[in-house]
Amino acid sequence: MSDSVDARVDALARDLSNWGRWGPEDGIGTLNLITPEKRVQAAACVRSGTVMSLALELRSDLPQPPGSGRLNPQHVMTETGSDAAVGEVVSGYSDDVLAMSVHAATHWDALSHVFHRGFMYNGRRCTEVTSGGARANDVVPFAGRLVTRGVLVDIARSRGVDALPHDHEVTVAELEAALAEQRVDLLAGDVLLVRTGQLGRIAESRDWASFTEANGHLPHEPGIGTDCLPWLQERGVAAIASDNWAVEHLTGGDGRLPVHEVAIVHMGLPLGEIFQLDALASACAADGHYDFLLAAGPLPVRGGVGGPVNPLAIR
Amino acid sequence: MSDSVDARVDALARDLSNWGRWGPEDGIGTLNLITPEKRVQAAACVRSGTVMSLALELRSDLPQPPGSGRLNPQHVMTETGSDAAVGEVVSGYSDDVLAMSVHAATHWDALSHVFHRGFMYNGRRCTEVTSGGARANDVVPFAGRLVTRGVLVDIARSRGVDALPHDHEVTVAELEAALAEQRVDLLAGDVLLVRTGQLGRIAESRDWASFTEANGHLPHEPGIGTDCLPWLQERGVAAIASDNWAVEHLTGGDGRLPVHEVAIVHMGLPLGEIFQLDALASACAADGHYDFLLAAGPLPVRGGVGGPVNPLAIR
Amino acid sequence: MSDSVDARVDALARDLSNWGRWGPEDGIGTLNLITPEKRVQAAACVRSGTVMSLALELRSDLPQPPGSGRLNPQHVMTETGSDAAVGEVVSGYSDDVLAMSVHAATHWDALSHVFHRGFMYNGRRCTEVTSGGARANDVVPFAGRLVTRGVLVDIARSRGVDALPHDHEVTVAELEAALAEQRVDLLAGDVLLVRTGQLGRIAESRDWASFTEANGHLPHEPGIGTDCLPWLQERGVAAIASDNWAVEHLTGGDGRLPVHEVAIVHMGLPLGEIFQLDALASACAADGHYDFLLAAGPLPVRGGVGGPVNPLAIR
Amino acid sequence: MSDSVDARVDALARDLSNWGRWGPEDGIGTLNLITPEKRVQAAACVRSGTVMSLALELRSDLPQPPGSGRLNPQHVMTETGSDAAVGEVVSGYSDDVLAMSVHAATHWDALSHVFHRGFMYNGRRCTEVTSGGARANDVVPFAGRLVTRGVLVDIARSRGVDALPHDHEVTVAELEAALAEQRVDLLAGDVLLVRTGQLGRIAESRDWASFTEANGHLPHEPGIGTDCLPWLQERGVAAIASDNWAVEHLTGGDGRLPVHEVAIVHMGLPLGEIFQLDALASACAADGHYDFLLAAGPLPVRGGVGGPVNPLAIR
Repeated sequence: MSDSVDARVDALARDLSNWGRWGPEDGIGTLNLITPEKRVQAAACVRSGTVMSLALELRSDLPQPPGSGRLNPQHVMTETGSDAAVGEVVSGYSDDVLAMSVHAATHWDALSHVFHRGFMYNGRRCTEVTSGGARANDVVPFAGRLVTRGVLVDIARSRGVDALPHDHEVTVAELEAALAEQRVDLLAGDVLLVRTGQLGRIAESRDWASFTEANGHLPHEPGIGTDCLPWLQERGVAAIASDNWAVEHLTGGDGRLPVHEVAIVHMGLPLGEIFQLDALASACAADGHYDFLLAAGPLPVRGGVGGPVNPLAIR
Repeated sequence: MSDSVDARVDALARDLSNWGRWGPEDGIGTLNLITPEKRVQAAACVRSGTVMSLALELRSDLPQPPGSGRLNPQHVMTETGSDAAVGEVVSGYSDDVLAMSVHAATHWDALSHVFHRGFMYNGRRCTEVTSGGARANDVVPFAGRLVTRGVLVDIARSRGVDALPHDHEVTVAELEAALAEQRVDLLAGDVLLVRTGQLGRIAESRDWASFTEANGHLPHEPGIGTDCLPWLQERGVAAIASDNWAVEHLTGGDGRLPVHEVAIVHMGLPLGEIFQLDALASACAADGHYDFLLAAGPLPVRGGVGGPVNPLAIR
Repeated sequence: MSDSVDARVDALARDLSNWGRWGPEDGIGTLNLITPEKRVQAAACVRSGTVMSLALELRSDLPQPPGSGRLNPQHVMTETGSDAAVGEVVSGYSDDVLAMSVHAATHWDALSHVFHRGFMYNGRRCTEVTSGGARANDVVPFAGRLVTRGVLVDIARSRGVDALPHDHEVTVAELEAALAEQRVDLLAGDVLLVRTGQLGRIAESRDWASFTEANGHLPHEPGIGTDCLPWLQERGVAAIASDNWAVEHLTGGDGRLPVHEVAIVHMGLPLGEIFQLDALASACAADGHYDFLLAAGPLPVRGGVGGPVNPLAIR
Repeated sequence: MSDSVDARVDALARDLSNWGRWGPEDGIGTLNLITPEKRVQAAACVRSGTVMSLALELRSDLPQPPGSGRLNPQHVMTETGSDAAVGEVVSGYSDDVLAMSVHAATHWDALSHVFHRGFMYNGRRCTEVTSGGARANDVVPFAGRLVTRGVLVDIARSRGVDALPHDHEVTVAELEAALAEQRVDLLAGDVLLVRTGQLGRIAESRDWASFTEANGHLPHEPGIGTDCLPWLQERGVAAIASDNWAVEHLTGGDGRLPVHEVAIVHMGLPLGEIFQLDALASACAADGHYDFLLAAGPLPVRGGVGGPVNPLAIR
């Protein structure tokens, strides 16, 4: 199977490569498609003035794929109200420390998160990413860029289910059908949010362990397949995010993530993972508007190969 | 001096208290002033479609006030491109961990960050903030709220300096003069960004050590004084942020932070600290527009007494 | 049941209290029973010159009782050989960071780890232990004290099992029978190591999850009961350690740990937890010597309410 | 200068290599020289039964060489007595987390800490040390080995100073003179502790900043030079430790650490750093005994390229 993955990835890499498209120094890939004009267009999507945070609450029991080795958010206090109370101070303070794997909660993958045949996006060698962090393609320039029109495409709803089955690969036909049903256009420079229902399912069942540990190296989960990538390129999508761990359909197999390899390494297309989309989907369904202003610049972690983010959908 | 601080704080607390104003369960204080209509108004401030991140880059050498005990952002890699290179893998990944004091970089203080006479905002006992985090008034509900019109008031520019002197307390008269010069109205529900030039001065001189360690318990720094608080209340300001560590004028004295005590505990007015405002100020000066859409919802840290944020000014 | 626990703890506290016994400033309790002469005696137990580490290897998958909230050892690299290889340097270095809950691996409880009715050992108020750490009774003075004669008492072997059943409470009669069978005297100033077989059972089955999560708030595990405490006091035992999480028999009940309350708070008797005793037990059984020189001073963590330790049995 | 360093290191590597000496699988180098008989001999050095911890107290303000990037010990509480007090519980607990660069406090360098020309000790490739830790030559097997006779050689005292000047390189002649003055024999299998006075000087002046930041990439500090290595090999020394950061004389130069390269990579001789030797030196001077039982097995950090240790000198 790896042979066919290799062949598929190599072919897509050839067809969809954006290396050099925005100059040799570029480190943000398809985020270049977000222009100032685009943001003016996006601001016009603010109709009622409601806001939704698409971030998962940071806490220590977030679900993680088996073998991920990722550290869930650890929140510890370095000064508390208990201390203030027993100290009988007039004025007191609390303070806290947060530690987490960047990729354990809602985040953007930077273009230094994935390597293919020794390279990362724009022809940079993977050896630019050492223990000191990413010397190229880090997440910092995403911070002031990621504001544009967002479009939600609710595949779960379109398929009539709360959540897609674990073995469901989202196709171009499904994306197009759902967009048509939702009567929303996908435009160049948009960020596309694909709802699978996966994160909500996990959150509701609270059955993290059985779900994530069942399938060996990687979990199964619904998401887009590589067939969607030419379509995303053609439409000029600036970035794609989903309510699952990997954006792409995981089949629990050999550990290859072909969408990651093509999208991040060759297209320079950022992936947003573990976005909470259920409440947004309900709101969109209620008023029929599936587009909004998306303000989703991550924390500017120097050398970061990912960035924690509180994505805001402003409708 | 503490006596007079006490008297001043107690008087202001009496005059400006918002406890109960938004019900007994409220934990977001003056953020209640941000209405949906307000955000529609804010979206109309998007004129050119440019964006600016007001966050300081997260790295391990950020300046900290002496004795703060705060941990600067620590970014460590758990998987690297070096590993991928020596492993000669077809596809490889990098991954990272971020650990930091929430209040060490650009952040919002939650309404559980400060206690006065045993209480925090809305009459909650300080003992609700234990080693397990804040059981009330945590930062989570800020995440989906903090989108509104932002107004920059550039006091440094108005005073004709790159940065205000360390012992400069910003007054109501100065705020009003600068707003008038800038020809911008401050409206109810706005977030006010007060530029002192402090953060830029530190960043330029790179002289963290001498600056921050010179004055014992707390550094001196320019910022607003308690006299500004009635004015902020009257104007209906939803939150205030500044390009310094404490928003308020620090005099290196007895460790009391009267603006914190009144604003956070009694008014329920969130303070945003370590916001980078220099580039924004230049842009505002260039085109004469000092208002913008501010999307500044922090990461939703459960139990968090502060929240890391990448504030985005969309103009 | 809590009533009877309360009554039992209060009675034992009255009978066994060592508060004041070694002066009002004392913070090491029964470690005072380890005299220089005692160590000379202990050194005479070095017969063959073999050494055994009783520490569990530090890694991220150590078993933890459910709800403990403890962070397993996290080992991250800040410089690697991969980096050196791709950098083609003549000489290179690696470096690492370790983060862990002190009580997640092999450790000593300090006398500031437990409070009873508002107090800790020697009449210090529990409020001496704030977010800044323990201002009294911290683990630091253990570091240069904990070298003495160690005696292993192998209850599992004595009972003819690999590991005691989960609901087994070790009694004084069993301790005495095993010591008699082992033909070893327990002397004043000794550290007693009680083997239950629990840690080895867990390590072998690797069935952490089912074991630790089965019983709600606290797991069941074999260990000593409060009835052993008068006997330990009478014998002049300096400290006690076991191959389980809590030294004492856990019944999964109401969360009270009566041995902890009496031993640590009232007797000032340090408990050593998660000690690996299986290999030591085999060696003792093989040559018939159950006493040895025990060098078990923990890392001197300032303010620490526990201390990580590599206990060394030198035989 | 690097040329001459290279030539010197290469020549010493050729002369002193222990690769293969203890078989192709060996990962502990000269610790093999510590035999059971050796430990029986060492136990006989316990004369008065006093113990000294040679570990620096773990706290957040330890001195670090400039540019080391090392994280000082961070001790945070996850449960406190303040919490217990305000909770008015009958029984309460405290708990803590420790995070630190292993090499920031008293520690042993593992044989995976240094690479030379792409290799580490015993011909293992440096690429065995990835972000996942050291797959070979990690610190784990040190844990149950490092108990032997220790010999203190007090060069500062021998030279009549409290601390050696920063630019002082300790020579073989000095080592031999001091040993002779001290009337102590250095025997095969011993651990040699070389006192420079450096750590005490820093601790006393508390002038970390000026000292450590003065000299660019690396500080100057007194310590042994490469000329001592053949002598250490000849004497059969099992390991060497010192009261400074690097054991070896640092000249603030080009960042090469030739003693590290030869000792760790080629000889497989572990270096112990940041050992506190002042109190031990006073005790030795007082009674004239400079040898003792040294129990210094580090925490067994899986994959660790160093190990935190509380070295115990039992006299």
